[in-house]
Amino acid sequence: MKKSHLFTPGPTPIPPEALLAMAQPIDYHRSEDAVALIKDVLDKLKHVFQTENDVLFLTSSGTGAMDGAVSNLLCRDDKVIVIRSGKFGERWAEICEAYGVKVIPIDIRWGDSVAPEVVESTLSTHPDAKAIFATLCETSTGALHDIESIARITQSTPTLLVVDAVSALGADDLQMDNWGVDVVVSCSQKGLMTPPGLAFAVLNERAWKATERSNLPKYYFDFRKAHQRGLEGSVPYTPAVTLLAALQCALNRICEEGIRNTISRHNRMAIATRSAIKAIGLQLFAASPANTLTSIRLPDGLDGKAYVRMMREKHGITYAGGQGKLSGKIVRIAHLGWMNENDVIVAISAFERGLSEIGYDIRLGAGVTAAQEGFKKSME
Amino acid sequence: MKKSHLFTPGPTPIPPEALLAMAQPIDYHRSEDAVALIKDVLDKLKHVFQTENDVLFLTSSGTGAMDGAVSNLLCRDDKVIVIRSGKFGERWAEICEAYGVKVIPIDIRWGDSVAPEVVESTLSTHPDAKAIFATLCETSTGALHDIESIARITQSTPTLLVVDAVSALGADDLQMDNWGVDVVVSCSQKGLMTPPGLAFAVLNERAWKATERSNLPKYYFDFRKAHQRGLEGSVPYTPAVTLLAALQCALNRICEEGIRNTISRHNRMAIATRSAIKAIGLQLFAASPANTLTSIRLPDGLDGKAYVRMMREKHGITYAGGQGKLSGKIVRIAHLGWMNENDVIVAISAFERGLSEIGYDIRLGAGVTAAQEGFKKSME
Repeated sequence: MKKSHLFTPGPTPIPPEALLAMAQPIDYHRSEDAVALIKDVLDKLKHVFQTENDVLFLTSSGTGAMDGAVSNLLCRDDKVIVIRSGKFGERWAEICEAYGVKVIPIDIRWGDSVAPEVVESTLSTHPDAKAIFATLCETSTGALHDIESIARITQSTPTLLVVDAVSALGADDLQMDNWGVDVVVSCSQKGLMTPPGLAFAVLNERAWKATERSNLPKYYFDFRKAHQRGLEGSVPYTPAVTLLAALQCALNRICEEGIRNTISRHNRMAIATRSAIKAIGLQLFAASPANTLTSIRLPDGLDGKAYVRMMREKHGITYAGGQGKLSGKIVRIAHLGWMNENDVIVAISAFERGLSEIGYDIRLGAGVTAAQEGFKKSME
Repeated sequence: MKKSHLFTPGPTPIPPEALLAMAQPIDYHRSEDAVALIKDVLDKLKHVFQTENDVLFLTSSGTGAMDGAVSNLLCRDDKVIVIRSGKFGERWAEICEAYGVKVIPIDIRWGDSVAPEVVESTLSTHPDAKAIFATLCETSTGALHDIESIARITQSTPTLLVVDAVSALGADDLQMDNWGVDVVVSCSQKGLMTPPGLAFAVLNERAWKATERSNLPKYYFDFRKAHQRGLEGSVPYTPAVTLLAALQCALNRICEEGIRNTISRHNRMAIATRSAIKAIGLQLFAASPANTLTSIRLPDGLDGKAYVRMMREKHGITYAGGQGKLSGKIVRIAHLGWMNENDVIVAISAFERGLSEIGYDIRLGAGVTAAQEGFKKSME
């Protein structure tokens, strides 16, 4: 009796009422009902982004919002600083380069997080950098970056801080307004428990100011148009209406739980997973691991690709393997979105049994016990 | 007992098995199952596009594929010809201008279709135009353009013919290969009976050649990347997996019916609707109406916006009103996608009763009778 469990850092499992919302007969995106839906969703997203700024949405993957952040904020030949510590930091640099923006990279070893002092010194060498592109959780490595400290640095300079919170929104803390982050982008299929196809961007006042100066070509991802229409509960182009309906259900859950509690829940799941991995005798890959997912360094000789494939095919358990240069070397377990303690126990116990099955010397139950103890402690 | 009927030219009704496919637990987009799904969908789309060329897909609205067609085919300061006969022809021009491409417009009165000779003479005045941007069905007016004749002109020149088949794919004939169309773009929420969020582009060999020369900035909408990955059943960025699952169901229906039969069915529905409108005593807005939708010119003094609102609120019938300068002046009834004769009868009968209700002098049953006779005739 196969039963599937999805532990990838996006897509993440969808709550049942959101699944059923998508199975309802579809509606016209310019109806008054759709206007009310769009307004409600954009309003509730402010709670998740912890901001009073308007949220705008696009029908695309998260990368669409990243593309738009570059083309809406910058001019050709502008100079920017990009923190590269994995595949998604690299993506910021690739997008900037595609638009003819000059990139000053801060290259960090994959798995590590940037030291805020390095950002500070790079910025003092390049005070004319128009923006710093950073990643809250680098999904390819599981590393969390200290956006609060970086924002403290950029806030007093004219340089904008643009944060990719694609995977981490709703799992790792990001207090856009309190911390002084200028731009945040994210998408639907991670902490927001909705299928992929919607992306979001939030700009503060000085970021909107920068869009007035920007001369890079943009049409579909024109933030000002999306923002203006969104305020009216409208859109410049046909939006993914079924995904908006699902998102509304998912946002109702987060608003009921409260974003601070949502983040705490993710923190409890992450701490329990990390203790489990250590109890199993394996190493965490990220030096400062995120709440979003846990990356596990595999022992030499263990083929991560084969392990991930076997777990899916034989056990219905889908973990994510490593990307790019980490292919085969790490396993990534997400505890993200519509998940709680019991899902973590499933993820850990299956991980243990799978390792044992391929002949890795492991004391079965060690990981689960550590996770259980972690959960108990978090209740105290 | 309110029962809703959607007659907008996108989104269009979704078949039940496609709705239920979206309500299934979501899956990882890099699994072997997802690879098989993507390959199957891209293969079946060839049948709908009537082409042997590869189809590529993007997670966006149709406008995203239009944006990509401009940024992937052209260079800054290139000259192009744009046929503008409504909102969507205007969109081609807006996108080109956003990218710094010089537009030679062919402006046609809204509701009319371009005469191929006008395209021919414009092209002979501007033989250096890199592309002609055209629209198969101009959704804002309901007019069909003679793409076959235009392709006959462009085929023997170096100028590419790029066709927006966003609303008309699967409803109005478009024989990409036979006619020699170079690029076709479309999307999911029209004839393809799937919710909005997926867009498609098909390029022939000489269009792919043009992408090599193109120097406009692009990242998310990079066609070559999407094409290459698609061949492997993969994607550069997380795709709208739930919409792909729905699309597979919808494509199974079209492949079973056969695209030629699908187009004939739309033709029967369109002919019946047109006779009904004439029998009611109203005028068609488009000189050469498409199979996709029927635009109806409202008599002076009839407020189209109020009529459309009343029909939705009171009767659960959603037609589309006019866009832009046609706001309030026309009503658009789509007979598109998951529809047959019985849906047309519902659309026409409700239209009649609604007109009567607001005091328009009408012989009830006139439209329905004409539609019935049209359907009978088409069976002979």
